Amino acid sequence: MNQALASEIKIRLPAWCIEFMATLPKHLETDQAKMELAVSLSRQNVERDTGGPFAAVVTAIDTGQLIAIGVNRVEPDSCSSAHGEIVALSLAQTRMRNWNLAEVNPAPLELTTSCEPCAMCLGAIPWSGVARLLCGATKGDAEITGFDEGERIPDWIGMLNRRGIDVVTELMQPQAARVLKDYAKKGARIYNP
Amino acid sequence: MNQALASEIKIRLPAWCIEFMATLPKHLETDQAKMELAVSLSRQNVERDTGGPFAAVVTAIDTGQLIAIGVNRVEPDSCSSAHGEIVALSLAQTRMRNWNLAEVNPAPLELTTSCEPCAMCLGAIPWSGVARLLCGATKGDAEITGFDEGERIPDWIGMLNRRGIDVVTELMQPQAARVLKDYAKKGARIYNP
Repeated sequence: MNQALASEIKIRLPAWCIEFMATLPKHLETDQAKMELAVSLSRQNVERDTGGPFAAVVTAIDTGQLIAIGVNRVEPDSCSSAHGEIVALSLAQTRMRNWNLAEVNPAPLELTTSCEPCAMCLGAIPWSGVARLLCGATKGDAEITGFDEGERIPDWIGMLNRRGIDVVTELMQPQAARVLKDYAKKGARIYNP
Repeated sequence: MNQALASEIKIRLPAWCIEFMATLPKHLETDQAKMELAVSLSRQNVERDTGGPFAAVVTAIDTGQLIAIGVNRVEPDSCSSAHGEIVALSLAQTRMRNWNLAEVNPAPLELTTSCEPCAMCLGAIPWSGVARLLCGATKGDAEITGFDEGERIPDWIGMLNRRGIDVVTELMQPQAARVLKDYAKKGARIYNP
């Protein structure tokens, strides 16, 4: 008999995030507005001590409709895969009741992340069905701060493009990188095994 | 106001899995026993129509203690990241209340997967803290069957080794690949966007 095994994984947005969600507009009209929200979420997640300095947002490409927000929940939810991108994509899929965001209404959707995806999140993006990726801070910004982004394939942007996913990098990069630098300055834990 | 946003992700093992867990031994003494369990779970997941033909198991390297089991839950739980490996690793972390499986007791832990990891799961493995990876079917087996494994870095085994993770491939490969072939023969949906 082996009854100690767990059977359910739960990843939750923190309470402040749920309150904050109710204040958000239904549409984010510009790429800058999407990234401002992702960066704001990443900063608040640090300031409120509810996870790492990373966040992401899923919106509709055509209308800017806000579909989901996500923040890093690795430590609070004891889940090494709960990066901001995975949380935002999974919450979009939960809301749409569909694992394939290419099939939902409205589609196509896009992911805006406060920092370029790590190797895991890069692998996850094509499986999610999003058709556009907007990145703030760079892999270099994350690594200078002490985070490990993993070994991505060198031509990661070309790989996404060939799969029909448009990529924008370094959108509001200074503001996004500032959150990582402030996190490191605080002496906060850089968690990679 | 934006109250339609989701705030919780739930990934659950199917009911048969929970019943099956209670019949499992507390320890899996050999690598073969670990892979037999992973392959059995992948086959049952197809036969019971509760997800894709992939499963994984987390055990303690030294004692074989069974820590967690996982099956693919992409379609039933509407989550493109709910691959067998991510589910098994996350359930191990849930049970241990620690995102870092290198820090738990017992450690070190190992992941046994019925099929070599896709690009996403490959990226996830170093973040999880496991120290050993056992694979059944190959990337080629998955791709012949129609599944997309994504663009992994060419020297993925060397990358894991350099991060202190031992890798065994093609353990019980014929049995593991048979589950994928039977799934494809059934005309089941191959889901990649």
